[in-house]
Amino acid sequence: DARFDPKEHQHLRYNPLRDSWILVSAHRMKRPWAGQVEKPPEEQIPRYDPRNPLCPGNTRANGEVNPDYESTFVFDNDFPALQPDAPDPGADQHPLFQSKAARGVCKVMCFHPWSDVTLPLMKKEEVVKVIEKWVELVEEIGITYPWVQIFENKGAVMGCSNPHPHCQVWASNFLPNEPALSDRCQRKYYEKHGEPLLLEYAKQEAEKKERVVVESSDWLAVVPYWATWPYQMLLLPRRHVLRLNDLTTEEREGLADIMKRLLTKYDNLFEVSFPYSMGWHGAPTGPHLKENNSHWQLHAHYYPPLLRSATVKKFMVGYEMLAQEQRDLTPEQMIPVLHKSVKRYVAILHR
Amino acid sequence: DARFDPKEHQHLRYNPLRDSWILVSAHRMKRPWAGQVEKPPEEQIPRYDPRNPLCPGNTRANGEVNPDYESTFVFDNDFPALQPDAPDPGADQHPLFQSKAARGVCKVMCFHPWSDVTLPLMKKEEVVKVIEKWVELVEEIGITYPWVQIFENKGAVMGCSNPHPHCQVWASNFLPNEPALSDRCQRKYYEKHGEPLLLEYAKQEAEKKERVVVESSDWLAVVPYWATWPYQMLLLPRRHVLRLNDLTTEEREGLADIMKRLLTKYDNLFEVSFPYSMGWHGAPTGPHLKENNSHWQLHAHYYPPLLRSATVKKFMVGYEMLAQEQRDLTPEQMIPVLHKSVKRYVAILHR
Ligand SMILES: O=P(O)(O)O[C@H]1O[C@H](CO)[C@@H](O)[C@H](O)[C@H]1O
Ligand SMILES: O=P(O)(O)O[C@H]1O[C@H](CO)[C@@H](O)[C@H](O)[C@H]1O
Repeated sequence: DARFDPKEHQHLRYNPLRDSWILVSAHRMKRPWAGQVEKPPEEQIPRYDPRNPLCPGNTRANGEVNPDYESTFVFDNDFPALQPDAPDPGADQHPLFQSKAARGVCKVMCFHPWSDVTLPLMKKEEVVKVIEKWVELVEEIGITYPWVQIFENKGAVMGCSNPHPHCQVWASNFLPNEPALSDRCQRKYYEKHGEPLLLEYAKQEAEKKERVVVESSDWLAVVPYWATWPYQMLLLPRRHVLRLNDLTTEEREGLADIMKRLLTKYDNLFEVSFPYSMGWHGAPTGPHLKENNSHWQLHAHYYPPLLRSATVKKFMVGYEMLAQEQRDLTPEQMIPVLHKSVKRYVAILHR
Repeated sequence: DARFDPKEHQHLRYNPLRDSWILVSAHRMKRPWAGQVEKPPEEQIPRYDPRNPLCPGNTRANGEVNPDYESTFVFDNDFPALQPDAPDPGADQHPLFQSKAARGVCKVMCFHPWSDVTLPLMKKEEVVKVIEKWVELVEEIGITYPWVQIFENKGAVMGCSNPHPHCQVWASNFLPNEPALSDRCQRKYYEKHGEPLLLEYAKQEAEKKERVVVESSDWLAVVPYWATWPYQMLLLPRRHVLRLNDLTTEEREGLADIMKRLLTKYDNLFEVSFPYSMGWHGAPTGPHLKENNSHWQLHAHYYPPLLRSATVKKFMVGYEMLAQEQRDLTPEQMIPVLHKSVKRYVAILHR
């Protein structure tokens, strides 16, 4: 029997945050690719576009005029998936036709008045302002709602329809599937091992060093052992922190710094403004603020779609949708690629 | 308080096969779309291409020559994600760094010798041949492996890299996440209600008629109540059937017929060869053949990505990846659209 080598031999890995398995098939990258090729992200975005509803001073779909904002700017989504006042479908339902009321708010948050910057191209102080606004929103909206999902869809390939740097905040009167699952998994681990899952994980990764992408005294970013997307990343504080609004001033500044470093690595990877969906997971809020949530640890997930180049992505399709997520090479093999330094793109990074 | 109207008011719906919830926000389709636009599927594919490794008589990547096949043709995937003989990672692992052996086989199955046909364009007898080959593969490979996943990725937008009509068969020594979850959900329902979940569901849908797309004496295709993709479809026999190889000769012929009708509706929808990922779920095999699997009902899932037109898809990104799947209008609103008859595309259907 051959000795097991993760770089050579297909295997399953366990995702403890989702209680599920990933199929890792190290050699699938060798297959020729004659499939779909994406348009590379646009590099020439005007700093100000009079028709862009996210720019300062412009009029949005509902007739409202944006202020001449100079830092971040938050407004209610003009086409919200969640509104505060939907009626209840009522009880007494067939078990196979169950529905429930969904209430909430959807906000859009611009990161910067300029359309031609992204988080890694912004100044550290400007990224700190973004983080401070996130903290404020979690604190404010979290009084009422059990879940406040902050997320950024970056790049057209990730369904983003506006190049202006922005994220969204969708808060709901229910715990959505993903955080509910993560809550169960973290709780179970805590009950069994007496310490938060992600604190132990961060400690282990900081020691092993095999999957670390960037780190500082307060923060750690790794391609997780159970990563499903090729360059997936998990960003988390080293200290036990439940929610964004529990971060100290230094930790917020450290976060701005590590986000800039992490996203610069992403941009350098294929020498384009790197597309991804990212979002924050922290302990639930609203009625959960009164509960013990020690099993939780704040973290951000980064899910970038690209696989081979700026234009060839990983497709999570047939087998992945119907059976199980599958990746074409190991998470560890992504680390040297993420660490290569690229002269060309670093130059563009100075505005 | 306003009365609840699913077409007007956002709500959650329960997916009993996945024990999870979908956010249905009826009015999101109204938002303007300035995001990514896909290339429409190619309409002019040559019947025979000397460079296409799936065509009869051509040489594949590994040097093997395809026979001059006249119906279906099955061969081992030249870049398999699963192979029969990977070594075991071994036990004694940290709970956060768990891996397991993964063994299996990956096969490719061509539906037809011609590259310019698709299932809806094939003759009924030709589709019957495809179904018979599926039956044969489930029977043969299912002797050894607990799960035999038959799936088709159709269209470049679904990661398909070869326009020749084909599907794949990936069999594994483990029950993948999705069927494992479906197995648990169907079992729980059966234990509680004393009848198979999907049999009761088919009965209800056949009565309600609200979400039925095509039906026959043996088969039923609906946009499920809990659909997440805009035009998602669930295809299932009306009789209690555990696996593809339990279908009678008449049911196989009825399946060919209903598949042609269903896929013609898809093609007519936006007047293009409609992209999707589809696959079969039936009772597990291998060691599970000896168990009681009465809670199972054979079914196929169709997951098509398009939303507004042949070139604008639904993006399952930020909120969907990090929180919960969300759809922009109700499943019921898709039914009249699927039923409209289109003169132009019906004409092309006659070869
Ligand atoms: O095997 P193929 O067709 O080359 O690859 C396609 O289907 C596979 C199974 O769903 C996916 O893992 C790949 O990402 C996709 O491109
Ligand atoms: O709200 P947006 O940016 O228009 O829309 C984008 O993000 C949403 C939340 O992830 C998704 O539901 C949409 O499919 C996507 O296009």
